[in-house]
Amino acid sequence: MAGKKVIITGVPGVGKTSVINESIRRLEEEQVPYQNINFGSFMFEVAQREGMVQDRDEMRKLDKDAQKRLQQLASQAIAKIEGNVIIDTHASVKTPAGFLAGLPEWVLRELKPDTIILVETDEDQILKRRLSDATRVRDIEGARAIADHQNFNRAAAAAYATITGCTIKYITNADFLIDRAVEEMMQTLR
Amino acid sequence: MAGKKVIITGVPGVGKTSVINESIRRLEEEQVPYQNINFGSFMFEVAQREGMVQDRDEMRKLDKDAQKRLQQLASQAIAKIEGNVIIDTHASVKTPAGFLAGLPEWVLRELKPDTIILVETDEDQILKRRLSDATRVRDIEGARAIADHQNFNRAAAAAYATITGCTIKYITNADFLIDRAVEEMMQTLR
Amino acid sequence: MAGKKVIITGVPGVGKTSVINESIRRLEEEQVPYQNINFGSFMFEVAQREGMVQDRDEMRKLDKDAQKRLQQLASQAIAKIEGNVIIDTHASVKTPAGFLAGLPEWVLRELKPDTIILVETDEDQILKRRLSDATRVRDIEGARAIADHQNFNRAAAAAYATITGCTIKYITNADFLIDRAVEEMMQTLR
Repeated sequence: MAGKKVIITGVPGVGKTSVINESIRRLEEEQVPYQNINFGSFMFEVAQREGMVQDRDEMRKLDKDAQKRLQQLASQAIAKIEGNVIIDTHASVKTPAGFLAGLPEWVLRELKPDTIILVETDEDQILKRRLSDATRVRDIEGARAIADHQNFNRAAAAAYATITGCTIKYITNADFLIDRAVEEMMQTLR
Repeated sequence: MAGKKVIITGVPGVGKTSVINESIRRLEEEQVPYQNINFGSFMFEVAQREGMVQDRDEMRKLDKDAQKRLQQLASQAIAKIEGNVIIDTHASVKTPAGFLAGLPEWVLRELKPDTIILVETDEDQILKRRLSDATRVRDIEGARAIADHQNFNRAAAAAYATITGCTIKYITNADFLIDRAVEEMMQTLR
Repeated sequence: MAGKKVIITGVPGVGKTSVINESIRRLEEEQVPYQNINFGSFMFEVAQREGMVQDRDEMRKLDKDAQKRLQQLASQAIAKIEGNVIIDTHASVKTPAGFLAGLPEWVLRELKPDTIILVETDEDQILKRRLSDATRVRDIEGARAIADHQNFNRAAAAAYATITGCTIKYITNADFLIDRAVEEMMQTLR
């Protein structure tokens, strides 16, 4: 059994991590083990191992070509992992210069995912979750900007599907209905 | 004259086949002949000829790599056909694991279409058409899911246009206005 | 310093040129010079130099392969320009046969832009601007068609980001607020 590679994405505040953790916990009980890899942290480990950086701060200072090489190295290493793997990352990242594709072509061609999941919900719910989460400092965005971000992710996902042949699954993580989101994720991961 | 290659897509229930058949019938009268190829059936014929399957049921059991090779073989064979060709297929297919791109990169690079047509209409009209069509058993979807499917198709089509340089034409097949849809399709096919 | 390559796009009537010109003027005062290249005009110059055409009319009559070669030649030439460059073009072009990607893969792979800017505004405002601009003859479109065009551009932009790794920046050029649009563009170009 070669194992499934599933990329899970969602804008900040959508509750992606909670849905992933609960799904993995329950699937373990069903003897369907998944390894959970955070793409950003994994890239940092690769960068350290390769002697490209010493701390997380230096990661941001890498030039574009070094970033790209690092993304490719990390993707190649993940592709080699046996068994079921979740790759926790972003479909796109919002920067001052605009949206950056979280899964550019050179990453997708190495990772060869089976499925990309978009964890989503109503932009107003996301706004409220962000405002009430005191543990993180996040840039303030209005609901419309959050909607734009989620729509960009859907458009990018369609391009990702065209390049890789993977499926694109939308999973709604609505207020009071996280159990529904977990069940849908489990169905997709099983 | 090398002939035009036009891919025609639309979600189940949008009435794609009726619009295609009437357009071909009328264009024949204008001496603009089109050969109509159903991509799924064509793939099955190729699979049989290559000894990959014996019946339609086996098609679904092919593994991912075999599917991909088959899609490529079918696309190469279609690309060699002389004269005008319509390829009747889906911009995306909704599966339990999410949307699957109907025209992944390896299909598009072989087919090299001139145009991809998206036959569309209001999601509520599609819902009603599906509910009143007793001849087919279809999964029940709400209007919102149909809207999501059509939007995914538009996003995928933009990726298809980027890779191939083909044009993307939206044609509305609204209730009581199939004649408008046929005229628009004829204009695009002429 | 290698310089930034920024592609700026927007549907006809959105006021792209005004925002570009004012941004360039003010950035010059800040000693941030930008060269402004219109992709269509640049392609025509290349075509003349290569002996492919003698006047602008002949440009439209070039066959698909010649167009593609010309787009590639122009893109290669622009990629070699030193310093900061704005490439003024369209994210997509609306033709009778449907939307044509303004930045197909073979253009993007040569240009390697840092950022693609989409200058946008409400479709109703664009409609009014088109109707009141007596200096140009434009095809009449309703507001819904303009919205479709802007949405196609966003979907295409997500595919562009996937292929190139560039950022995608939306800038709103709303009525009475061109100064906001100029400031946002300057921030992105700086």
